[in-house]
Parts: sequence; C-alpha cells; structure tokens
Amino acid sequence: MSLPEHVTIREVCLRDGLQIEAPIPLAAKLALLEAVVATGVREVEATAFVSPSKVPALADAEALAAELPRFRDTHGVEFSALVAGPGGANRAVAAGMDSIEYVVSASDAHSRANVGRSTAESTDLIADIARIAHDGGATIEVIVATAWDCPFDGPTDPARVVDIATAAVEIGADRIAIADTIGTTTPRRVTTLVELLRPVVGDLPFGAHFHNTRGAGLASAYAAVTAGIRRLDSSAGGLGGCPFAPGATGNIATEDLVYLLRDSGIGTDVDLQAAIRAADVARDVVGHDLPSALLRAGDRVLGRVRP
Amino acid sequence: MSLPEHVTIREVCLRDGLQIEAPIPLAAKLALLEAVVATGVREVEATAFVSPSKVPALADAEALAAELPRFRDTHGVEFSALVAGPGGANRAVAAGMDSIEYVVSASDAHSRANVGRSTAESTDLIADIARIAHDGGATIEVIVATAWDCPFDGPTDPARVVDIATAAVEIGADRIAIADTIGTTTPRRVTTLVELLRPVVGDLPFGAHFHNTRGAGLASAYAAVTAGIRRLDSSAGGLGGCPFAPGATGNIATEDLVYLLRDSGIGTDVDLQAAIRAADVARDVVGHDLPSALLRAGDRVLGRVRP
Repeated sequence: MSLPEHVTIREVCLRDGLQIEAPIPLAAKLALLEAVVATGVREVEATAFVSPSKVPALADAEALAAELPRFRDTHGVEFSALVAGPGGANRAVAAGMDSIEYVVSASDAHSRANVGRSTAESTDLIADIARIAHDGGATIEVIVATAWDCPFDGPTDPARVVDIATAAVEIGADRIAIADTIGTTTPRRVTTLVELLRPVVGDLPFGAHFHNTRGAGLASAYAAVTAGIRRLDSSAGGLGGCPFAPGATGNIATEDLVYLLRDSGIGTDVDLQAAIRAADVARDVVGHDLPSALLRAGDRVLGRVRP
Repeated sequence: MSLPEHVTIREVCLRDGLQIEAPIPLAAKLALLEAVVATGVREVEATAFVSPSKVPALADAEALAAELPRFRDTHGVEFSALVAGPGGANRAVAAGMDSIEYVVSASDAHSRANVGRSTAESTDLIADIARIAHDGGATIEVIVATAWDCPFDGPTDPARVVDIATAAVEIGADRIAIADTIGTTTPRRVTTLVELLRPVVGDLPFGAHFHNTRGAGLASAYAAVTAGIRRLDSSAGGLGGCPFAPGATGNIATEDLVYLLRDSGIGTDVDLQAAIRAADVARDVVGHDLPSALLRAGDRVLGRVRP
C-alpha cells in the first residue's frame, strides 16, 4: 500500500450540500463560505449553473459568483461550479468561475432523468464545454456520475466509465473525477474502478466523490486514496444528499475525512478544528442536524483528563 | 491486497450495545435475540458477568443465560460473555457460556478506571481466567482494550498490545482480539497494529472491535480485513457507545458492515435484510434512533424503478 503525503479536498457544501435544501438567503451562504475558507481549504465548489426551476436552492448562482473575488483574493481559493450543458458553461465563465465541472452520467437512464440526454449525447458535448471553459480562461473537469450504480439501469458497466474518461482525456479535459452519485459503492469496487481508470487518466488530476448513504463513504474514500486518487470531494457536516435517496445521509463530511486522513499521515489543506466550526455553521444555516461524526464527538483529545 | 472469502461477524448488541442503555426487561432482550439469531449470525456476545451495580443493564446475566440453550439448539449459535476477572469467569462458566471474553486494557489508566487493576495485574490474571474457562468447557478470548488510544494515557504504545497478546498466546488463549475502545482509530493505524500482531497471534483466530465514534469505523474494519483480521464485532443498528464519549455513535452497525463486505465479495453468515430487521427491533427495544446507515437507506435496490 502506498499512501500519498497530501490529498486535495474540495469543499462541496455550497453546491452538492445545499442543492436539495430549501433555498437559503445569499447572506447565509456567504456566512457558510466565510467559515469554509477559514478552514484553509484551497478548492470550493461554489454553486451550479443549472435551471433555477430544477434547482431553486442554487438559483442565485450569478449573485453568489459576484461575491467570490474577495475570497479568491484573500484566501487564494479556487472556485468551481457544476454545469449540465453549454448554456450553463457560458453562464459560469461569464460569472468568472475558475473551473467548470461538467457531469456526464455513465448510465443512460440517469443521464436522461438528469439532463434529458443519453450518455453518448452528453459525452459528445464535452468538446463544446471544454472550448467554452478554455476560451473563458477556466479549466474543465469531467465528472463521471453513476460511476458504479444507477438507480434505474442497475450496476454500471465499467467500460462505460472508461469510454467517457477516454473521450474527456482526448478532448483535453484538465481533470477527471468519478462520482458515487447514489451512495452505493464499497471499497473493493472503488479499488477496481480506480485501477481500471488510472492508465486512462494518466497524469491528469484524478478525483472521486462519495456519499455516505450506506455508511461506506469514508471506507470508499480511503480505498480510493490507496488506489491512487489524490482529490476528494467532501461537505461540511456531511450536508447534502441525493434526490433519489430520501432520508439518506449526504456527502462524506469534510471534518470526518480530514480526521481520517490526518491520522493516516496524509496531509490536507484543512484545519480540523476550523472544519468542525464550518460544520457547525452549516448546521445553523440549514436549521437541522447533520450526519457528521466529528460534529458530535469532536477530535480525539487524549491524556488531558484523568480517571 | 488479498481479501478473504469469509469473515466471521460476532453480534454484540446484547452486551456492548445495551450496556450503557437504561436497563430493559428480559423479554425485550429475548425479542432482540430472536431477531439477531434470525440473521444467520453464528456468534453472539450475549451479556457480561460483571458488577450489577456498575452495569445495571446487564444485571440479568444469569437469567438471560438460562434462556440461551434453546437458541443454541435451534440455530447453532455460539454465545460468549465478557468478564472482568475470575469471579465473573466463574459465573459465566456456571451459566453455561460457550466462550469467555476477558478484557485487558493496554493502558494502565483505563485498566484502573475500568477494573481497578494495572495492565500488568490484569495480564497476570489471564492464566486464572483461562483455567476457569477451560475447566468449565468454555473457550477463552483475550481482548486487548484501548489498543490504539486511551482517554487518559494518550496513544497506546503498540509494544504494550504486543506484550498482552504474547502473554495470552503463551498461556493458551483460544482467540485474540483488539478493541478500539473509544472510537478513535483510523485505517492506517489499524493496518500497522494488525501487521505487528499477526506474527504474535499466529494461527489463532484474530478479531477486531471498532466503534464508529469518529466516522472511521467501517474504514477501519475494512482495513483490518485487508491486513488479515477474519473476525469482526458489530452491533445491530450501531447500538452502543462508550461511557467516556457521551453523545458519540456506537459500535459499527452489523447491517452496514454486512453490506460493505458483501459488495466487496466477502461472505458472512448474516442475511442483510434480516440484519436490517434486527436493527429495527434494536431501535424499538431501546426506544430511540440508532446511527445505522442501512436502517435509513436500505440495501441498494437497482433497476427496479424507472425515471
């Protein structure tokens, strides 16, 4: 097992975390963003440029983007935004995003449910999105959704993930990522897929996105790191979920991930105590409890109390 | 990475799960036990023979033990009980337990807080407990508690764990296990300790016990399995906790563990749907929510719904 010295965490609470919540005011998002950038994290998924009617919680994408330059300047944070097509990509670059995340679902049924296009049709659009991003001075990351399972089509044929990643690399994507969209994968399946994709992705930054819906999110994240992944998405407090899995827990919690990586000798840019404070803010702005373990238990503090 | 075809799960909800709960009636424990044995699990930690005043929830140990023969006969389940010294061991064999779990804390401060003896004094008692167990027709498992961290003494020197395991093997213990008593360990630390102990434990059955207090329980369990552990404790619904970590989540949940292992190609004796039903019963008998992920999200069911 070869573990890296460093893994890059991207904080996704402002997009994946909030997207199925009831809309919250821009001021609340900015309070959360303040807490997030105070953790030291260097990459933040700020919003999505998608249909405001489909995702009302992110309808303020342009307004939020207008607030980002001051955080970028003071904290050196890179801001990304998710898009579903060329229209969103144009909006994102116009709004000054540093990086565009373009999602391609590896399963046709999820792709059609999500964006009304087949996987092949979405793959064909990578070139357009990449051109829009690059012309606008942004980088493009292609995220393969339903990389392991689709709620409609069943387990995803890994060859479909390889095909999308291959197309993305050939077209000139700057980063590749794989996403466990519905929170079903487990460590061994992660290892298998990452090892299959590594030769395809080559030297490009290669990330993964896990949900803790069935408790295996952190185990999957660690398996991904042992298999060569060096970028992980996580969300303050574990905020977030999937519209297809009501009641399920959300993204892996940033503070839980940082704890696990730190005590495995793997550095991140994130300060653990600041991450717990950000999780606390996340809980406040959405007004309900969050699944984070560290938010309850805190860091391990040993030898300070006596029996 | 070499993964086994099978891992033995021991269900601990009746002991570790219930020990810090308010006492529940024997009939409720038997209802839970019915649900537990229906999962197919072959080993159940049924109770502890300890001071009723210190652990009132398990004060009915003899009464519960008297009910076990019918479950043993119909389901072929092996029942174990935890003991803290020779007195408890005598009670346990008199009550007909199949296996005695004797806990030795690797840290002096935890050992003294728990049983009023130093680690060395507790280690010296292994021979007595083993003789009582073997004379009574039971097997003995030595469990090293605070194997990674002690809330009072800080991180545990792995040499202390090795010393206890070495003594246990020399004295003739039938099984060795290591326990993350306060739920602080992480996968890499697990791998390191298991690899250090493997030559000591040799061919004896070697188990591990994790709590999910800081979210890393399943990741640690999977790391343990990849490092050679073939026995894992878990608790229906994730019932259980540690008196030293109030508000923290408890043992790793049996159903979450079974899901992770099954989808990693590792068999257990436990049926997942039956395990989810047992978790539901566990929630009912204690009357509060439990941290299990599968209890909320259920098994992955793919391809049955259409968008």
